[in-house]
Amino acid sequence: MSVDAVGTVRRGRGARRKQRETRDVAMLPALKRRLPLTEPMTAEQIARIDAASMDILENTGVVFRDDTALEDWRRAGADVRGERVHLDRGLVRELIATIPETFTYHARDPRKSLPFGADHAMFVPMTGAPYLRDLEDVRRNPTLEDLANFHRLSHMLPAMHSSAHHIVEPYDHPISQRHLRITYSSMKYSDKTFMGMTTSPKNAEDVMDMCAILFGAEFLETHPVVTGNCNGNSPLVWDETMLGAMRAFCRRNQPVLCSPFVLGGANTPASVAPTVAQLNAEALSALAYTQVIRQGCPAIYGHYLSTVSMKSGAPMAGTPEISLMNLMIGQMARFYGVPWRSSTTLGGAKTFDAQAGYESASTLMALQMAGANYMWHAAGWNEAGMHCSMAKFVVDAEQCAMAYRMAEGIRWDDFDEGLAAVADIGPGGHYLGHPHTLENFQRAFFMPELFDNNSIEQWQAEGAVEVNERSLQRCRDMLNEYEEPKLDAAVDEALRDYIARREREIPAADALNQDY
Amino acid sequence: MSVDAVGTVRRGRGARRKQRETRDVAMLPALKRRLPLTEPMTAEQIARIDAASMDILENTGVVFRDDTALEDWRRAGADVRGERVHLDRGLVRELIATIPETFTYHARDPRKSLPFGADHAMFVPMTGAPYLRDLEDVRRNPTLEDLANFHRLSHMLPAMHSSAHHIVEPYDHPISQRHLRITYSSMKYSDKTFMGMTTSPKNAEDVMDMCAILFGAEFLETHPVVTGNCNGNSPLVWDETMLGAMRAFCRRNQPVLCSPFVLGGANTPASVAPTVAQLNAEALSALAYTQVIRQGCPAIYGHYLSTVSMKSGAPMAGTPEISLMNLMIGQMARFYGVPWRSSTTLGGAKTFDAQAGYESASTLMALQMAGANYMWHAAGWNEAGMHCSMAKFVVDAEQCAMAYRMAEGIRWDDFDEGLAAVADIGPGGHYLGHPHTLENFQRAFFMPELFDNNSIEQWQAEGAVEVNERSLQRCRDMLNEYEEPKLDAAVDEALRDYIARREREIPAADALNQDY
Repeated sequence: MSVDAVGTVRRGRGARRKQRETRDVAMLPALKRRLPLTEPMTAEQIARIDAASMDILENTGVVFRDDTALEDWRRAGADVRGERVHLDRGLVRELIATIPETFTYHARDPRKSLPFGADHAMFVPMTGAPYLRDLEDVRRNPTLEDLANFHRLSHMLPAMHSSAHHIVEPYDHPISQRHLRITYSSMKYSDKTFMGMTTSPKNAEDVMDMCAILFGAEFLETHPVVTGNCNGNSPLVWDETMLGAMRAFCRRNQPVLCSPFVLGGANTPASVAPTVAQLNAEALSALAYTQVIRQGCPAIYGHYLSTVSMKSGAPMAGTPEISLMNLMIGQMARFYGVPWRSSTTLGGAKTFDAQAGYESASTLMALQMAGANYMWHAAGWNEAGMHCSMAKFVVDAEQCAMAYRMAEGIRWDDFDEGLAAVADIGPGGHYLGHPHTLENFQRAFFMPELFDNNSIEQWQAEGAVEVNERSLQRCRDMLNEYEEPKLDAAVDEALRDYIARREREIPAADALNQDY
Repeated sequence: MSVDAVGTVRRGRGARRKQRETRDVAMLPALKRRLPLTEPMTAEQIARIDAASMDILENTGVVFRDDTALEDWRRAGADVRGERVHLDRGLVRELIATIPETFTYHARDPRKSLPFGADHAMFVPMTGAPYLRDLEDVRRNPTLEDLANFHRLSHMLPAMHSSAHHIVEPYDHPISQRHLRITYSSMKYSDKTFMGMTTSPKNAEDVMDMCAILFGAEFLETHPVVTGNCNGNSPLVWDETMLGAMRAFCRRNQPVLCSPFVLGGANTPASVAPTVAQLNAEALSALAYTQVIRQGCPAIYGHYLSTVSMKSGAPMAGTPEISLMNLMIGQMARFYGVPWRSSTTLGGAKTFDAQAGYESASTLMALQMAGANYMWHAAGWNEAGMHCSMAKFVVDAEQCAMAYRMAEGIRWDDFDEGLAAVADIGPGGHYLGHPHTLENFQRAFFMPELFDNNSIEQWQAEGAVEVNERSLQRCRDMLNEYEEPKLDAAVDEALRDYIARREREIPAADALNQDY
């Protein structure tokens, strides 16, 4: 069968214009997984990891570099020796038992609120990049306008369920006040769920206050509307900044990601199973602390997970051990009944080359099979998180849409009609004109828009453009088409007033604090 | 934690030279899977596909465009009407029951023979490309020397378990005699398993004769040493060329891949489950025929599987439905107890850009979870099979090595030692100098050699080279280091004599016949 023979529609300029006009920017509902997950550990092996983690918590203990936390732990009945907190397994189990297994993430457009946890999952763009590769593929420090553009794209990309927060670090605004502008940008340019800065306890309080303005203080108290990420310092340390920010979120009943920051082999043992045992102990210690702060408040089992090249010390991505550890950590999170965050389209490539594609797709597929609920860093990540690539941002988002489709599983609703078509067509025919095909072709097979599957002759006739340049053009088109979601004028003014007041109060100097 | 702080070894020129001198070219043993597979269908749904396929075979029937096959089927008790063979499900089940579930593939170096089927799997390079992207990244028609280079690389790449056959089509030799030179090249430049040309029944006979020279005629009769691929013409047609080649292989007890050639939506219904039902019927009809030819001869459930863009008619790769269908087909092959071939690192990109990376990695990961035994097209495939990329060839092979490592699953043998290291190091330390790290770092975490994970400053200092150029350099280095495996001089002479005789007998003209 010649491939050319089945072509029926040719894409010309007119067709491309029409496609732009009708681009689908409707957000996909929260993903509900229907494929079986990959669970490499037996119940016995899960119990072995659990026991090892509990041993670490009891015998080695975890350092909480924060007086308030140490005092909280003492009151909660932990064995506190200096900065080191030894946690009895009974206490840990009792505390984490009150973490909600599922909840709803509320967006300012209530149609974009998302069920979360168990078999529901959502995609969140990358965060924290100190550089971007921009619309001209130039690597430079980002501005507030660049950040706004990423929030605009997040708003328009169907598989993105969140506009996150500081996708890129806006260098054109004083660092000490940046969290206010970042939060406003997340709220203003997208009406999806978003994240909140945890760069200091006071910054986190500002985020809470702004959420109270956007959603109402009372609503906030009883509805998760924002997520904070709190990184641990592996091995087995939580610091004052993160713990203070955690308290700011938990006190207002807003979920935090409790994320050990693991560079496997450097800050964990050079081995898969012991690394998971340590990471699990670290996550449990912070998850337990969220419940000391406020019993019943939502919290998420998190991590940033890389392995380190023992040749160069560089963090790696897309490697088999990272995939295996993700599969294992998914099992542990489900064992404890806590929602779980992992990182999706990671990679270490310096440009948007084939390396970036392999690394990101491998990680994304492994995460799908692992069953992560909160799929973070799902668009734009490159260069080990040092830059966010605009080109990669839109390609990753399409990859997430494809992963979404795959996780939905097999449709059987037209099985008999499809078989009737086989009988109709018989040996040697083709299906292109058959009524079943005409009825089903739109939904039957995913058609990636950013991948070129044309013949080389067509591709050359269209300028021999590689995926990087095609995707940058897509970004330009989308930003041209962007329509800002309506924000109530009074709310907008209140947010701006709050920012103006706080910017008068906060001196325009501080230390950069990155949040992977 | 600063990433730079963990770097201990810097790679300079000296280090790279040393690495070349000690490059590991030892073939990995046959992969034995230890991860659970992803099985999206319930037993009931498997039965539903099976029943639908059997209905197709009984009621719609399959066209065998070949008088010998029709005569064979009549003798076997099938209901033959014209060219159309209606196969009773009882007959089909009886016939496929004699296909061996497992066997050993014999290589000319017996240490490279491979257990095959059930939970064993092997990687095979791409085949059939009419173009290559060469060492200078130029797209052109290949020569016999290009083919030899791909066989040399296959010989040296640890995760490649086969040198295949016509990885690229050598255009510098008359097409009617090409199969002889291709087969010789597979045999000569690598001592791994290989494949045999099926471009005509007579060509297949030549391959059998050459295998008899290489392995001995008697050995051949009782040991699988070569594989033929026989493509179907979906929907539901097998042609004379393929059936004749199939007979040549089966009569000598050599396995064939029975491969429906599916462009989902064009030659199957526009729907996942009915497509699998049709493909399954097609595969079963050919698998059954192998047992009519010679009861008990090995045979492999195959397919080439793409979905078609309903916008352009182009075949696509790496899409969610292809992944889902692979998962389903794996379940069907295991249901019938027949070894299963699928295609691994497919893609439609025109160059080795990020698109190629995403597509290939997605397909590879899905195949891993699907449990294919014979993972074909596992290196070099690009542009929907129109070219084999030298750069991509070595990167794909490294990806296969990573997939191999992942499929091996979790090691627990140093779990207690790793936990002892956690207790030793305690909160806030690092593991780089710990004895457990020094003992385990080499095997703990896979370190891809073709992916750059260094800082941007280091990468720039080394010339800012993207993965395409790095990989071409790797190919040049490997071809410089290549050592030809010893072939017995008498056998070599006998093979050359055979080729010389056949080239005198065969007129130097014929039609191009491609074999995906």
